[in-house]
Amino acid sequence: MTLRELIERPHAWPAEEGGPGVAVSSRVRLARNLAGAAFPGWAGEEERERIWRELRGRLLELPALADSAAAGNAELSEQDRFILFERHLISREHAGKSRGSGIVLRGDERISIMVNEEDHLRMQALCPGLRLREAWQMADAVDSQLDAKVSYAFDARWGYLTACPTNVGTGIRASVMLHLPGLALMEEMEPVVKGVAKLGLAVRGVWGEGTEAHGHLYQISNQMTLGEREEDIVRNLETIVGEIVEHELNARRRLWSQREVVLRDHVGRAAGILTHAHILSSREALDLLSALRLGLEMGIVSRLERRDLLELLLLTQPAHLQMNEGRPLSPFDRDRARAELVRRRLGGVLRLAARGRRKSR
Amino acid sequence: MTLRELIERPHAWPAEEGGPGVAVSSRVRLARNLAGAAFPGWAGEEERERIWRELRGRLLELPALADSAAAGNAELSEQDRFILFERHLISREHAGKSRGSGIVLRGDERISIMVNEEDHLRMQALCPGLRLREAWQMADAVDSQLDAKVSYAFDARWGYLTACPTNVGTGIRASVMLHLPGLALMEEMEPVVKGVAKLGLAVRGVWGEGTEAHGHLYQISNQMTLGEREEDIVRNLETIVGEIVEHELNARRRLWSQREVVLRDHVGRAAGILTHAHILSSREALDLLSALRLGLEMGIVSRLERRDLLELLLLTQPAHLQMNEGRPLSPFDRDRARAELVRRRLGGVLRLAARGRRKSR
Repeated sequence: MTLRELIERPHAWPAEEGGPGVAVSSRVRLARNLAGAAFPGWAGEEERERIWRELRGRLLELPALADSAAAGNAELSEQDRFILFERHLISREHAGKSRGSGIVLRGDERISIMVNEEDHLRMQALCPGLRLREAWQMADAVDSQLDAKVSYAFDARWGYLTACPTNVGTGIRASVMLHLPGLALMEEMEPVVKGVAKLGLAVRGVWGEGTEAHGHLYQISNQMTLGEREEDIVRNLETIVGEIVEHELNARRRLWSQREVVLRDHVGRAAGILTHAHILSSREALDLLSALRLGLEMGIVSRLERRDLLELLLLTQPAHLQMNEGRPLSPFDRDRARAELVRRRLGGVLRLAARGRRKSR
Repeated sequence: MTLRELIERPHAWPAEEGGPGVAVSSRVRLARNLAGAAFPGWAGEEERERIWRELRGRLLELPALADSAAAGNAELSEQDRFILFERHLISREHAGKSRGSGIVLRGDERISIMVNEEDHLRMQALCPGLRLREAWQMADAVDSQLDAKVSYAFDARWGYLTACPTNVGTGIRASVMLHLPGLALMEEMEPVVKGVAKLGLAVRGVWGEGTEAHGHLYQISNQMTLGEREEDIVRNLETIVGEIVEHELNARRRLWSQREVVLRDHVGRAAGILTHAHILSSREALDLLSALRLGLEMGIVSRLERRDLLELLLLTQPAHLQMNEGRPLSPFDRDRARAELVRRRLGGVLRLAARGRRKSR
């Protein structure tokens, strides 16, 4: 399978996330560089191209990457690269790069590797739900298998050397994407963000900045990469995220008991606008789909599944919209195509429960 | 029929307005005072009570007021008086008054008279659509018939004397309520307001201030009461309003041809929110019902009539909501009851045309 085929076929949604739907996905990425070669930012295009070709060959040999596809950035169109960015498989920066950089992607889209982004290697493993340790094991397998074939830039005192000092040491960044509408609607996000920051973790909106996260989607990740073992970083993050999940579930229970009308209004309006609007910005789509997901988790919205909403979230983003329409679209035409897509998918399908029905978990 | 019965029975909606639905209603009110009696603001409660009793008797004898009901303000509850205010039959100030003031209302709600508001007499006639001359004739009939029975405060040089100098002379205030969403959506309200002001007329939001009229509902009225004959004031206003109606219809045509998606989005969102919200402020209800009315006029909304929307506009106002629920409501409970009422009335009824269908007029 080629990378183009992976891009064109419908996104491989992970099987049911399970759990209460607060933790959307878990991700671990490792930053590595080759010994004796300049970091990508300092290397010329020829040297980067040479490293990409070498690493591409090595990576595709690894047992952990059986059934993977690879392509140099220049072999893909800009739209294709932004499709991968919108699927969270590569960074926005990497999507902007051309010759001298490349991408390796496993067929199930659970492992993706950027070559010559900021570092020679950014290896990422992604799991649905709160499964950081599993993601860590997947990334670690690729790392260990590759370690036997190439020589990493490693210092006995500092650990893995990276282009940016914030990654030196373990080179690990573990993160969880959380859907926190309950805390947001109960106006309790602020203390959570502050508490988490005190524990040395970073909280940011997946889209948007700071606590003003669009769609109530937050990314929580480790800040420190130095002085801690990778396993400890992963376990520590998983513990804290588990506590935030409990906070969110607690907020949702209180939302039911104390602000049911506010909840129904929030979900109802989202359903009303999504099924009736003719112009929809990506930001508004994100916010409204988030409200619908909350409605689904709370048993207010029926005849819809989590993956339907995740799919819409993806399909309403600019590059996916343009791929779907088969042509470049102006911002206004995107807003229009987005509204039409959402109306077509949700209109006549969506049902709101007239009476209170609380999903037991 | 008593005034209480008039209040409790459903509002007597005028028969079909006819026309293109831009001019919602036409109103003429005359300010008059009795000779040899202090203006209400200067009179004691006893004197005002004596004048009310005298005028009540005289008014109910007039042929133009056959089939009318009367009540002193103190005989009505505050809620009843605000019901009359919300129906535009009395002023907000008059609704706040108690003993010493009164109201006479014709059974068809087309003529209403406030006794001891700012003047001894404020006589108002109301017609649906753009029918100012008809409203003027109705008010004039009451005025002439009463003139034969009482002695008005009148000065040969100044004309009718009134409590506020702005009403001296003819004492006439003619006004038309206009629904101007086309001009608003085409962003052309500003020049219209300025042009009308230059012609000596006043434009204000029926609700809200200035050009930020809620629900795109505007009131256009004469400013001058001195130095012009009543017939000229009425004819002049009717001519200018006729031109504004043409501007609005022109803007709506361009809305279709140049901004159809914006129009469909505006109407669609209104329909979506009105049928799905669980909390609705009176301001938002006004704005959304206005959008629905535009959709109706443009042939986008079906299975609904103008009077259904006018009725909802009225029933969603605070005093009507409370009368409907049979108890006083907190502001939050009103927003909730309002949303429920609107959902119940419109849910399952409203239909939006999938394809463009332009009403020919």
